[in-house]
Amino acid sequence: MSVLAQLTAALGDLVDTRAAALEEARADRSGHAAEGRPLAIVHAETVAHVQETMRIATATRTPVVVRGAGTGLAGAANAGEGEIVLSTARMTAVLEVRPDDLLAVVEPGILNADLNRLLAEHGVWWAPDPASREISTVGGNIATGAGGLLCAKYGVVRDAVLGVDLVLADGRLLHLGHRSVKGVTGLDLTSLVIGSEGTLGVVVGATLKLRRRVVGTVCTIAATFPDVRSAATASAALTASGAQPAIMELMDAASLAAVHTVLDLPAPTPGAAQLTIQTDGPASEAEADAIAEILRVHQGSVAVTHDPVEGERLLAIRRSMHQAMASLGTALIEDVSVPRSAMPAMFDEIARIERQYGLTIPTVAHAGDGNLHPNFLFAGAETPAHVWQAADDLFRAAIALGGTLTGEHGIGTLKRRWLADELGDDQWELQRQIARVFDPLGILNPGKVFAPDA
Amino acid sequence: MSVLAQLTAALGDLVDTRAAALEEARADRSGHAAEGRPLAIVHAETVAHVQETMRIATATRTPVVVRGAGTGLAGAANAGEGEIVLSTARMTAVLEVRPDDLLAVVEPGILNADLNRLLAEHGVWWAPDPASREISTVGGNIATGAGGLLCAKYGVVRDAVLGVDLVLADGRLLHLGHRSVKGVTGLDLTSLVIGSEGTLGVVVGATLKLRRRVVGTVCTIAATFPDVRSAATASAALTASGAQPAIMELMDAASLAAVHTVLDLPAPTPGAAQLTIQTDGPASEAEADAIAEILRVHQGSVAVTHDPVEGERLLAIRRSMHQAMASLGTALIEDVSVPRSAMPAMFDEIARIERQYGLTIPTVAHAGDGNLHPNFLFAGAETPAHVWQAADDLFRAAIALGGTLTGEHGIGTLKRRWLADELGDDQWELQRQIARVFDPLGILNPGKVFAPDA
Repeated sequence: MSVLAQLTAALGDLVDTRAAALEEARADRSGHAAEGRPLAIVHAETVAHVQETMRIATATRTPVVVRGAGTGLAGAANAGEGEIVLSTARMTAVLEVRPDDLLAVVEPGILNADLNRLLAEHGVWWAPDPASREISTVGGNIATGAGGLLCAKYGVVRDAVLGVDLVLADGRLLHLGHRSVKGVTGLDLTSLVIGSEGTLGVVVGATLKLRRRVVGTVCTIAATFPDVRSAATASAALTASGAQPAIMELMDAASLAAVHTVLDLPAPTPGAAQLTIQTDGPASEAEADAIAEILRVHQGSVAVTHDPVEGERLLAIRRSMHQAMASLGTALIEDVSVPRSAMPAMFDEIARIERQYGLTIPTVAHAGDGNLHPNFLFAGAETPAHVWQAADDLFRAAIALGGTLTGEHGIGTLKRRWLADELGDDQWELQRQIARVFDPLGILNPGKVFAPDA
Repeated sequence: MSVLAQLTAALGDLVDTRAAALEEARADRSGHAAEGRPLAIVHAETVAHVQETMRIATATRTPVVVRGAGTGLAGAANAGEGEIVLSTARMTAVLEVRPDDLLAVVEPGILNADLNRLLAEHGVWWAPDPASREISTVGGNIATGAGGLLCAKYGVVRDAVLGVDLVLADGRLLHLGHRSVKGVTGLDLTSLVIGSEGTLGVVVGATLKLRRRVVGTVCTIAATFPDVRSAATASAALTASGAQPAIMELMDAASLAAVHTVLDLPAPTPGAAQLTIQTDGPASEAEADAIAEILRVHQGSVAVTHDPVEGERLLAIRRSMHQAMASLGTALIEDVSVPRSAMPAMFDEIARIERQYGLTIPTVAHAGDGNLHPNFLFAGAETPAHVWQAADDLFRAAIALGGTLTGEHGIGTLKRRWLADELGDDQWELQRQIARVFDPLGILNPGKVFAPDA
C-alpha cells in the first residue's frame, strides 16, 4: 500500500491532497518555496493523529515537515517533493489556565494573540510577542524559539516554557519538563526542543510560564535622530544607563521613508532615524521622563505621550514595516543579533555593505536587545547571488562583533549554509548527532538546519 | 606508562596524590562518600590543563569526575576508586565585566559570592543565589542548575547564562551560546549543559547574563502561623494575589525549634511555623504593607521592618538551618519542588510520611517557587533503609502533585534510582543516548545521574 493510501486508511479525511493546499505548504512568509510538491497534508486534531502519522512515516521512511500557520521567515516549515506535511493548526485547545501557579497548558495550534486574549480574562499573559503574533501559532513560536518586541524586559520563548509534550519520529509520546518553577531532573530537553525547528519531534502540547498583567499607564516616546548611527548610539547609552523600557524599536531612514509612503504620512526628514520606546509598570511615567532626558543628551528630538491611542499610532509606524517592504519589491528579511554596545558598529557595517554591493538595505531593530532586521530588497522571486553575498558579509560582520546570524527567525533552509560558520565544525557535528538520537532515520525536516550542502 | 605517570609527565605538580586530598574528594556536603579512593586530583589552572587531562583520560579510558568546591548535595562530584578528579577550583579569573551589555565572562572556579562582590563595584549582579553562595563555585552552580532564595523573582541559573565553553571527553573545546541577548542558531546546547552534572563535558568558562543592582529599601516581613499548613496556604495565597516578593522562606515548627536552640534564642511557640519575606525595588515599602495585609487575613501574626540590619537578623534564622540540622544528627537533605498551589498538600504528605515511618522531618521551603527541603534526620553516617523508603514515598508524592524530585540540587548518585520514575523509561533512555553523543566512551562521571542499577 502506498504511503498516501496508508495515511488515508488510518486518518480518513484528515488527509488533504488538494492542489492549492499542497502548493501553499511549499512556502512560508520568507517567500522562499521548496522544490516539488508534498505528498499530502495531515490536519491532525489529536495527539493520536500525530502519533499515527509518525508511525506511518517511520514505517515507510517518508520525510515529515511539521507546520503551524506557515508564518516562518527561514523556510523551516516549507514542504517539498514527496514529503508529508503534518499540520498542528487544528490543535487549538487551551487545556488549563492556572493564574495561581502562573501556568497554562495548551495545544500547539492556537495563535499567540488568541491565547493572550483568553489569558487576559484571567489577568495573566504569555510574554513572547513576535511581530507575527496575530497570525503565528504557539507551537511555531516554540519551534523557532521566537522573540519579539518585549524581549529585553520580558524574555523570549526559552524563558516562558516549563515543559513540552513531544511526539518522536517513531510515534512515541514524551512529556518533557515539569509544572514547577524549579526542576533539574536530568537534562533540560525542554530547552533543547525550543528553537529546534521541527528536527527533533512534533510539539503536541506545552506548559507555558505566564506573567501577571502589568499595571500602570503605558507611556510612549518617539525620538528622531539626525542619522541611524546616532539613534543606535542613543539606544545603547539608554541600555547602559540602566533604563528598562518594555519596547525600544529603531527604524533607519529608508525604513521610515517607506512606511510613511505606504501609510500616506508626510515624508520624514531625509536621513533621519527614529526610536519608538514604551515604558510600562507602576513607575512608567517617571521612567519615560528619565529616558527622554537621556535621548535629548544624545541628539534626540523627543516627544512623550501618556495617551494609549496616540502611543499605538506611533507604534503602528513600526508595525507597518513588512507591508512597506512588500510595496518596494521582494525582501530577504535578515535577523542578526549583537551585544547592545555593538549596535552602532553593526549599523556601520550595514552602511558599508550597502555601498559595497550597491544595495539599499532598510533596517529596523529591536534595539533593547540588539536584534536587527536588515531587509535586502530586490526584484523578482529568487534571491540574486549578489544579495546572498551581501547577506554572507552581514552574517560574518555580526559574528565578528560577538553576535549571531539569527536572533529569532531560525536557520531553516535559508541559513543552513552558514550554520557551521557560527557553531564551528565540531559543534555542528555534535548537534547533528543529537538530532539523530531523536530521529535516527532522518525523516524529520530533512534538508533543514543541519544540511550544509543543499 | 600508567595513567598517573602520564598525568604527572604532562601536568607536573598540578597532579595531587596526597591522601587527605584524595579522601576529601570522595565526598560532598551531602555526607555521602564514593567507594574507594580516586587516582589523583588534577588542579587545572588553564583550559589547556583541562584539555590535556581529558586527552589522557580518553586515551586510557579513565573515568573523570569534575569538581568545583565540593559543596554539592547529591553526590554528583564524589570521586571513587581509580577515578581522576579534575578540579577547576583554581580557575577563578573574571575575564570581562560589561555593565553596558549586562554580561560577564568568567572562569568556573570563582565562588558565587566573590563574583558578586566584584560585580557590585560595577553596579551589577549575577542573580542565582544558592544558600551555599559563599562556598560554592559558579561552575558548580552551572553544573547543578542551581537555584536559591531569590529565584521566584530573579530566576535560576538557567535564566542567567548566555554561553558556556565546554571541553569534551576527548579534549576538544567547544564554545556554546553567544554574547547577544537573543540567539537561536541551532540547538540550545548551553541549556543542555546547565544542570548536566559533569556528564557532558567540563565547563571551563561561562558568559553570564547580569542584572543591574536593585535600588530601594529592602523590607523584611516575619509572620508566624499556628501551623505549617496555614503558613503554606498563606504563601500560596500571596503568590496567587500577584505579589512578587524577592525572598519568601518558610520554616516549619521542627526547623524553627532547632534553629532557635543553636542560636540560643527563646523557644518559639510550639507548633508554630514562620514565613520570612523580603521585598525590594522602588515600591518595596508599599509591597511589604500589601503583603502583611494578606498574611494577616490568613492567620499570620506579622511584623514588618525597613531596617536592613534587623532584616538580616531575621533572615539569619533561616540561614542557620544547616547548622541546626547538623546539631541533631545526620540529615538527608531533600529537594522536591511542586506547583505553588500544591504546597499545602505537599506539607500534608510530609506529615503523613512522618507518622508512617516514625520520623521527624524538619522542612524549610523556598515558598515563592514551591521548592521544599525536607531534612530526614538519623543517627550514624549511612542513610538507613527505612529513611530511603520514606524519601521514595516523598518523591512519589511530589511527582503525583505535578512536581519533581529535585528542584535545585540535582540527581548525582543519591537520586539516580528515581530518575526514570520521573522521566519515564523512553525519555531516560533518550537522555542517556544524548549524553553518549558528548561522551562516547562513558568516562565522564560514570555511575552518576544515568546509572539506575548502582
